[in-house]
This record gives sequence, structure tokens and C-alpha cells, in this order.
Amino acid sequence: MSVKVGVVGGGQLARMMIAPAVELGIEIRVLAEEEGMAAGLAATAVGDYRDLETVRAFARGVDAVTFDHEHVPQEVLRALVADGVAVHPGPDALLYAQDKLLMRARLEELGLPQPEWAAVSDAAGLQTFLDGHDGRGVVKTPRGGYDGKGVRVVRDADEAADWLAALAPGEELLVEELVAFSRELAQQIARRPSGQTRVYPVVETVQRDGVCAEVIAPAPHEGGRVAAVAAEIGSRIAEGLGVTGMLAVELFETTDERLLVNELAMRPHNSGHWSQDGAVTSQFEQHLRAVLDLPLGDPSPRAPWAVMVNILGGPVDDALEDRLPAALAAHSSAKVHTYGKAPRPGRKVGHVNVVGDELDAVVYEARAAAAYFAD
Amino acid sequence: MSVKVGVVGGGQLARMMIAPAVELGIEIRVLAEEEGMAAGLAATAVGDYRDLETVRAFARGVDAVTFDHEHVPQEVLRALVADGVAVHPGPDALLYAQDKLLMRARLEELGLPQPEWAAVSDAAGLQTFLDGHDGRGVVKTPRGGYDGKGVRVVRDADEAADWLAALAPGEELLVEELVAFSRELAQQIARRPSGQTRVYPVVETVQRDGVCAEVIAPAPHEGGRVAAVAAEIGSRIAEGLGVTGMLAVELFETTDERLLVNELAMRPHNSGHWSQDGAVTSQFEQHLRAVLDLPLGDPSPRAPWAVMVNILGGPVDDALEDRLPAALAAHSSAKVHTYGKAPRPGRKVGHVNVVGDELDAVVYEARAAAAYFAD
Repeated sequence: MSVKVGVVGGGQLARMMIAPAVELGIEIRVLAEEEGMAAGLAATAVGDYRDLETVRAFARGVDAVTFDHEHVPQEVLRALVADGVAVHPGPDALLYAQDKLLMRARLEELGLPQPEWAAVSDAAGLQTFLDGHDGRGVVKTPRGGYDGKGVRVVRDADEAADWLAALAPGEELLVEELVAFSRELAQQIARRPSGQTRVYPVVETVQRDGVCAEVIAPAPHEGGRVAAVAAEIGSRIAEGLGVTGMLAVELFETTDERLLVNELAMRPHNSGHWSQDGAVTSQFEQHLRAVLDLPLGDPSPRAPWAVMVNILGGPVDDALEDRLPAALAAHSSAKVHTYGKAPRPGRKVGHVNVVGDELDAVVYEARAAAAYFAD
Repeated sequence: MSVKVGVVGGGQLARMMIAPAVELGIEIRVLAEEEGMAAGLAATAVGDYRDLETVRAFARGVDAVTFDHEHVPQEVLRALVADGVAVHPGPDALLYAQDKLLMRARLEELGLPQPEWAAVSDAAGLQTFLDGHDGRGVVKTPRGGYDGKGVRVVRDADEAADWLAALAPGEELLVEELVAFSRELAQQIARRPSGQTRVYPVVETVQRDGVCAEVIAPAPHEGGRVAAVAAEIGSRIAEGLGVTGMLAVELFETTDERLLVNELAMRPHNSGHWSQDGAVTSQFEQHLRAVLDLPLGDPSPRAPWAVMVNILGGPVDDALEDRLPAALAAHSSAKVHTYGKAPRPGRKVGHVNVVGDELDAVVYEARAAAAYFAD
């Protein structure tokens, strides 16, 4: 009897779990929001992940339920757990991925390094924070943001007037200091229910317009100390928040070489896509092993360097696949991954991984191959 | 509009095409012989590959048709081609994978090195050949054999009496000299309809009871000459027979260092499974690119050594998956691939790939991990 995993959400993260599931003999079932989604090949049900009965029916018969996103409501998650379903990551952990204010508070309890922050519910409170931090800050809606949405750099409380006005009584916004960072990093770690963890090499991420554009694995010029600190932070968060499955910790490396926690993702993450071609165990395979409580795989890199370049938007008047022949002809070592999503400005529609011995060549190849899919 | 490939046959070779198809955004449809086969996830139809109407209906709407096996009858293939379907490999090439006597004759025409052979239709003819070859030979049924079936070493014509008796008028058996080989090798090559080819490193294969047991990539101690000769043979066969998709040429390396062609397979082959984890472009991805006439990918190895060990038979009283936790716990770098097939003595039910820098360690890991799935 094969092991069965149920993935809630039919996007590209679920899609990229299909390959390792097939190879390891894991039966993968996906609850997709609609027909024709990225993970459509594995979709066994189409429905609303916010509806308990839909998710409950979907969860029947699988050995574990996991997620392509972090939006499944707490009451649905807790009902599943009460039913005896193995939910990974669980509701207690997901709380901190779903609510940024709760995350900041919890990380503070755990003594982990992060930007200075405050919860604010009015213009006065916000302005006070800005005044104490060089007249600027980053305002975030605590729930629902991703890929730069729900995040705004402000220099006056007025600039957040719309979000403040939309707050219900008791609701708050998160404001953080604008960190002077030399670069951004990401630390992936996998954790099983039984406690075993595996840490990936810390990577450097490059964002454009709030969206991940490139990833370099491992982070160059980090001399060992950054990797050790990032791994420690990742482990303490995974343990302290009880995360199971893949955890991605996005970090700022400050101009004075401190690491500060920016955001968390409790799922495979864009910063780990390089591992599909650059690590012995991809983050997608690792996530499946972790949520099914199978022994974790070797996270070691296969080569000195791996670079991922996102395909954002895609061509305006072509299908993504129309560009494939030219890209593959020009770059025979590039590993192209497409998501089966229609091109749309700024949308993540695929990525290119290149792996090799020389960083400059690998960066060049990845960018050049990805460029074939732009307009 | 995504590219669509139709694969006739629902076995593990089709199954292993799923992963690269999903990643490259190729829609993969499988015509399975029955429900619940290895490639069941991608099965869009269940039916008899020998029935023209079944295959014709299946082929409607795909950009190319290819195969998980070589048993589709010539008349079905030729009807598809006449319909205008892109069939790869095509019937003219597949003829030489389907009929060993035709293959031997064609390779002779092409001047390629192979064992001495003859077509025989009676005991006298067979005995004459045996008498001329140290009193022994290998008798093969020209059609239908695989994994050692339809192959018999004989020391007297009597030992093939049953096969001879079963011959219809005009039918013949193939008899070959029993080659004194120091080892067996396999040469993979991919070829596109447009003519581009890519050659994989020549590998060493170890057979037990006529079935592939282990593969070492690249073949050790080959000093360059063997690789060059094997690549040349592979290219000449691919071109001479008009093969498209993956071609595997099984070779004997004689005790006096000649290479002789043993058998051909026009599909991804057991001797190439190592490439899933050990090459930049797996044979399964390469096969899809080739049959869809997409530019071929880099066939280079990712590491100095890759070893594949087959899982033959599987446990008697367990499901294969029951052994997974122990195997993965003991060997975190082993890449386990299972086929979703029920254990049965001698049956190919999965394989383990290990990739690394030191051959002895890689061989050890692969054998040790695979052993968890034996009885």
C-alpha cells in the first residue's frame, strides 16, 4: 500500500512536488482551487480550501496533508487535527506564517535577531515609530501578504492612511525599521515530526519590485560564519515554532554583518528552487519526506554553484513554451522549469536553474536562458 | 498552447518520463494497457496498443507519439504515419528493434562490429553453426524477447528443439557466437528528427540471469578509446537506422578489447537510469526533447561516478514502500526510484542511484541501499 500525501493548493509549489512523489512511489493528490492549475496533473479534487467539508473529504485516506500555500484558515486546520489527520505544518506553526505580528512577538520571545518593530493601530502610533527610526519604516498588513503585496515603505504616517482606515477595532498593522542591508539571504531547513532536521546551504536572494528575481547557492563570500549563524537561526525557529516540512527563513545581512529575520515561509520556497538541480535532495522531495515523517535526505549541493533566475511575467504575445526551443538551443545546460500558468506582468511563470563550477559562468547562463522568456 | 506528447505503454519507462515532462511544461498523455500501471498518474486512456483505432484515437491532438516499449505492430505504426502523426521512433527504425534478424543483417550492411551470426530454420543448420563455433552458441527468437527472455545458450541443436519446432514455414531463429567478453557496456545516444545527436558517457552493465543488475557510469578503466569507439558505433547506428529519441546500444567488450554490438533498444533503457541523478539531462528528459524535436540537452555527468543498482523482485511479504524508511534512514544520499509495481520474483520494481566522487563508496552505497528492498 503506497504512502499518500494530500496537498492543499494547486499552484506551482504543488506542481513541483509531483516529480519527487512519482519517483519515490508516493501517491500525490492535490486539492486545486480551480481546473487547469499548475498542479492539474495531480489534482484529485477541485474546491475551496476555506470550506471545512471540502478539505475534510479531501483529507480522507491520505497519510498526511500539506500545503502549496499558507492561507488555509486556522479553524479548518484545527478541525482536521481534531479528526486525527496528520497536518504538516500544523496549525500551531502556521499561525506564525499567517500572522506577521504573531511571528514578530514569538521571535522576540525566542530571543532571535530581527528588525526593530511595533504593532500600531493609528497614525499617531505609526508616526511615533517613524520618528524614532530616521523618519521611515516598512508597514505591513499582518495577514495575507506575499511577493511584496501588503508591504509598503513609508516616510510619513499619512502614506499608510488607507491601511489604517481599513483596520477593524482591535486590529493592528506591523511597522518595522527599514534595515540597511548589504544583501538578502535565505535559510532553508527541513524538520520531521520526529524532530530530525536538515539544513540547506544559506543562499543569497535578489529581489526586484518586492519579488524574488535571482538566487545564488551558496551565498558567495560568506566565510563560514554567516552560514553557521543562519543555520542556528533556522534551527531555533523550526524547533521553537514546531515547524514540520520545509521552512524558509528570509534574512537581511546588515551593513555591519548582523543577520536579522525578515519573513518566514512554511512550505517549499522560491529561494530553494535551485535545489531541484543543485542539491542531492530537492526542497520538494525533502518537504514530502518531512511531512510524511520519512527520513530526511542529504541536502548537500551537487556542485560548487547553483543559480536560479525567475521567469517573471513571460512573453506578452507568445506562450511560454513557444520560447523553449530557442532557449534550449542556446543553453543546453540550463534546466528550465515552467509552471503551466498564463503569462501576466510580474507573475511567477517559471524559473531557470544552472549548476556548475564557476559562478560567473553559471550566473551568465541562467540569466541568458531566462531572458528568452521575457519580452 | 503547451506541447503534448503521447506515450504508448504504461510501464515504468513512461512513468519516469512524467517528472521531466512536468518540469518542462510538456503535457504527457499515456495509453496504458490496464488500470493501475506504473505510469497511471499520466494515463489518459486504457486500451490495447495493437488496436489501430485505439491508438489512432489516442494520437489525436498530440504533437508526437512515442513508446514505453517496442511492441506496437508495424501496421499500426505505419497507419499513424500515414495519418500524419509524428511517430518517434518511426516504424522504419523500430523494425530493427522488433526483429533481431533484421537488425543483424542491417548492422552487417552498415559494416558495424557484431558477433558472428546466422539465421537458421532447422536443427541441421543450427548444428552446423555450433560446430563452427566451439560447439556452442546463443539462440534467440527474432521477435519479442527482453530481459533475457527468448535467449538461450545451447551446446547442441537438440537444446533448441522446442523453438525450432514452433517455427512457421519461412520463419527463422537467430544464432550467435557465444562471445568471450570481459564485460558488457552500453552506449546511449539521443537523436532528433532534425538530425542533432547527443552521446552519453559509455557505461558498464552487469547482468544476472539475463537481467540488468547494476550499471556503472562512466565505464571504469576505459582510457578514452572504448568511449570513442562506442560513441562512433552508437552514432552510426542512430544515423543508419534513422532512430529518433533515445537509442541504447548494448555492447560486449571482448577479451581482446573489441566492441561488438549485442542488442539495441529504441527507448530509454535500464542502462541509462543513472542519468536521472547523475547527468545534467536525464535520458527521460532527453527522450522527450528528441521526440518533440526540441534542442537536446547537455548529457554530461554531474559527478565523477554514478552507480545504479536495480531492485529486482522486491520483498516477498512487504510492499516495497514498507522498506523505504529503513533504506532512507541508512542511506541519506541514495536516490530511490520505485515503479508502483507489485513485487514478484525477478521483476524490475525499482532502482537506486548514487552519485559521487569515489567509485568504491558510490558502489557500496547503491548496493547497500538497494539491499533494503530485497528479501
